[in-house]
Amino acid sequence: MNLPSEPTRRGFDHLWTTLAAIGRDPAGGYRRFAYTPAELELREWFVAEARARHLDVHEDRAGNLWAWWGDPDAGDAVVTGSHLDSVPQGGAFDGPLGVVSGLLAVDELRERGVRPLRPIAVVAFADEEGGRFGVACMGSRLLTSQLAPERALALRDDDGVTLAEALTASGRDPHDLGPEPALVASIGAFVELHVEQGRRLIDVGVPVAVGSSILPHGRWRFDLHGQPNHAGTTRLGDRDDPMLAQARLVLAARAAAEAHEPDDPDAVATVGRVRVEPNGVNAIPSQVAAWLDARAEQEATVRGIVDRISAEVGVEPHEESWTAGVGFDPALGRRVAEVLQRRDPTAPRPWLPTGAGHDAGILATAGVPATMLHVRNPTGISHAPQEHAERDDCLAGVGALTDVLTDLAATGPA
Amino acid sequence: MNLPSEPTRRGFDHLWTTLAAIGRDPAGGYRRFAYTPAELELREWFVAEARARHLDVHEDRAGNLWAWWGDPDAGDAVVTGSHLDSVPQGGAFDGPLGVVSGLLAVDELRERGVRPLRPIAVVAFADEEGGRFGVACMGSRLLTSQLAPERALALRDDDGVTLAEALTASGRDPHDLGPEPALVASIGAFVELHVEQGRRLIDVGVPVAVGSSILPHGRWRFDLHGQPNHAGTTRLGDRDDPMLAQARLVLAARAAAEAHEPDDPDAVATVGRVRVEPNGVNAIPSQVAAWLDARAEQEATVRGIVDRISAEVGVEPHEESWTAGVGFDPALGRRVAEVLQRRDPTAPRPWLPTGAGHDAGILATAGVPATMLHVRNPTGISHAPQEHAERDDCLAGVGALTDVLTDLAATGPA
Repeated sequence: MNLPSEPTRRGFDHLWTTLAAIGRDPAGGYRRFAYTPAELELREWFVAEARARHLDVHEDRAGNLWAWWGDPDAGDAVVTGSHLDSVPQGGAFDGPLGVVSGLLAVDELRERGVRPLRPIAVVAFADEEGGRFGVACMGSRLLTSQLAPERALALRDDDGVTLAEALTASGRDPHDLGPEPALVASIGAFVELHVEQGRRLIDVGVPVAVGSSILPHGRWRFDLHGQPNHAGTTRLGDRDDPMLAQARLVLAARAAAEAHEPDDPDAVATVGRVRVEPNGVNAIPSQVAAWLDARAEQEATVRGIVDRISAEVGVEPHEESWTAGVGFDPALGRRVAEVLQRRDPTAPRPWLPTGAGHDAGILATAGVPATMLHVRNPTGISHAPQEHAERDDCLAGVGALTDVLTDLAATGPA
Repeated sequence: MNLPSEPTRRGFDHLWTTLAAIGRDPAGGYRRFAYTPAELELREWFVAEARARHLDVHEDRAGNLWAWWGDPDAGDAVVTGSHLDSVPQGGAFDGPLGVVSGLLAVDELRERGVRPLRPIAVVAFADEEGGRFGVACMGSRLLTSQLAPERALALRDDDGVTLAEALTASGRDPHDLGPEPALVASIGAFVELHVEQGRRLIDVGVPVAVGSSILPHGRWRFDLHGQPNHAGTTRLGDRDDPMLAQARLVLAARAAAEAHEPDDPDAVATVGRVRVEPNGVNAIPSQVAAWLDARAEQEATVRGIVDRISAEVGVEPHEESWTAGVGFDPALGRRVAEVLQRRDPTAPRPWLPTGAGHDAGILATAGVPATMLHVRNPTGISHAPQEHAERDDCLAGVGALTDVLTDLAATGPA
């Protein structure tokens, strides 16, 4: 197994330390929402680190940052990277580990004296989590024409600020927002390294594995209406309390997913966000909005779960997003798996499906050959401060990514 | 029935119109939280209206505003009034109707040439709803030594601002906050006029009735802890999701109150407020706080409801407030009822208990002879924009209050 060189290991510690201070959430973990001061500081960090490596940096029309080694116009580029933004109270690894690993893989390729025959780029996609404006993978969706700029610009954060206003406030021109088909066409292969968001690699006992697919998933908002009234003086029979519907919805979501445990253990349904109006202790609410997140191996299973919940509460939900299942490029995946096998011939080599959406999935949908490398997470927890990856596993990820880039850039397109 | 004179009717329209514009909630109804710009504007309105009537205005050490007709130091005062603040998305009547009616009763007494033998005051109590700092009836509790100033000053609003900071920002000295025992001792009778918060007077068919009591009631916060994680990648068996406990709590509260419907139709239990951390669509929450409001005719019933809910979710709640049941002064109540009977000898005269807390209850607990007048609400709805009272019923309330003050101020203490 090729472990990264000593300078690259020191580079990991340096990059990780400088990132650790940026965008702390006072409630724990990180809060790195798109185009907020914290996220703009992360962008400056990325630009500075890329320039320190003499990479050519540019921001595309969708707000994603690119750092190029070699000529972008040559085409058939080998691209790696991930994102820098986070969910509220998010972990340190989801996103940044892929960006850091990409920069360090460049260092390591140079340490090894590799001379790539294809251009190599490290990308930091914008607003992958959708924590601020509600649409996940906004940067890669805009880039690949999967999200119309007009729709994106009108999205609002919880303070009522539109994306257009946020872009203006950060010194960008909202009119520039849009897709870049030529840039997308120039990507010959995309490999996103990411911390695992589950417990498979703990059970299997390997630090790095190839991603096979992204499960179909979506977000639905249920608007539950009632009659606002005084909680102390309104008799039970006179009430129309939407909090009761919210409670039934939460339990129905759990039951609907549990019903699929025997045939699909990846089927999940979650209500993680609610908004209560007026949210007063002595007020029967006028309205409760509850967001459902549902995923499963089969699209039909997800649809069935949503239908069952909808029937239970008697409300048709508003579909805020839908992402079809994406199988990553099989040829690219096999090639990456072979590189991993050469690194450690005796280790098991699981292919990991994931219930989480990723920019790699958006690029795959747009026809870009894409896959992922997942790095073991000893807590199995993600989107929370306890999300973790051991330093040795992170360095194994850098080593694996370096080997993959070496292989791809040396021998032509996947 | 003595209806108010034409000038007083015009006065009602004027006062109501000027109030209507202050403190609108963009989401509907009113948001008049203590010591916010909207509420400070209401205070200015009160001071100006009192001065226009040549009443002596002062603010006590608890933040309540008093407008005096006659010498406050004479003692044995007849006091009326209510409050000007509101819940979020509150109605126009809860509070302001009592203040407006008090000012108009003074006008009407003068129109009639009444020369009171006791001092008369109209009071506007501070922060009755507790919408901002979470403690209801803060002004009357502070005034009567039922809330320690140190505890009040440390209370925080949802933005983390303490009452001490809010007082300073509004030009007040937090060190001044405290009780006024001499002022409390000088109150010979307190009559609070209030819009009804239920449907009794619709059924009975009368515009005004006497309050008999305030039901025992309290607020409890349940802190439900879980393990934050990714909603898309965490299998059901690996989850510790506090939103499921919140859902069970909501349904348990309803069931616990329903179990008492046969023996106590006033028994209610409500979860009107929740706070979800981090409240992200794709995040299993780390924590959900849910607030329970419970009331019933008997204290033991309320305690039993809370215990049953606590057992259901396996969490001991934090009691944020508790108000014992308060029976209003029977002699004062009978005297007020006799005045109402003289106004309309054939009408039924129900005595109304109320599930809502009021400053009149706080004063009664402090030993002040107190009672209430309730004005019919055709929607039965309160703490919501649909809360209403017809103009004729409001004027009937002013007439009744004028008669009550005439009676009390002409013939000595109740």
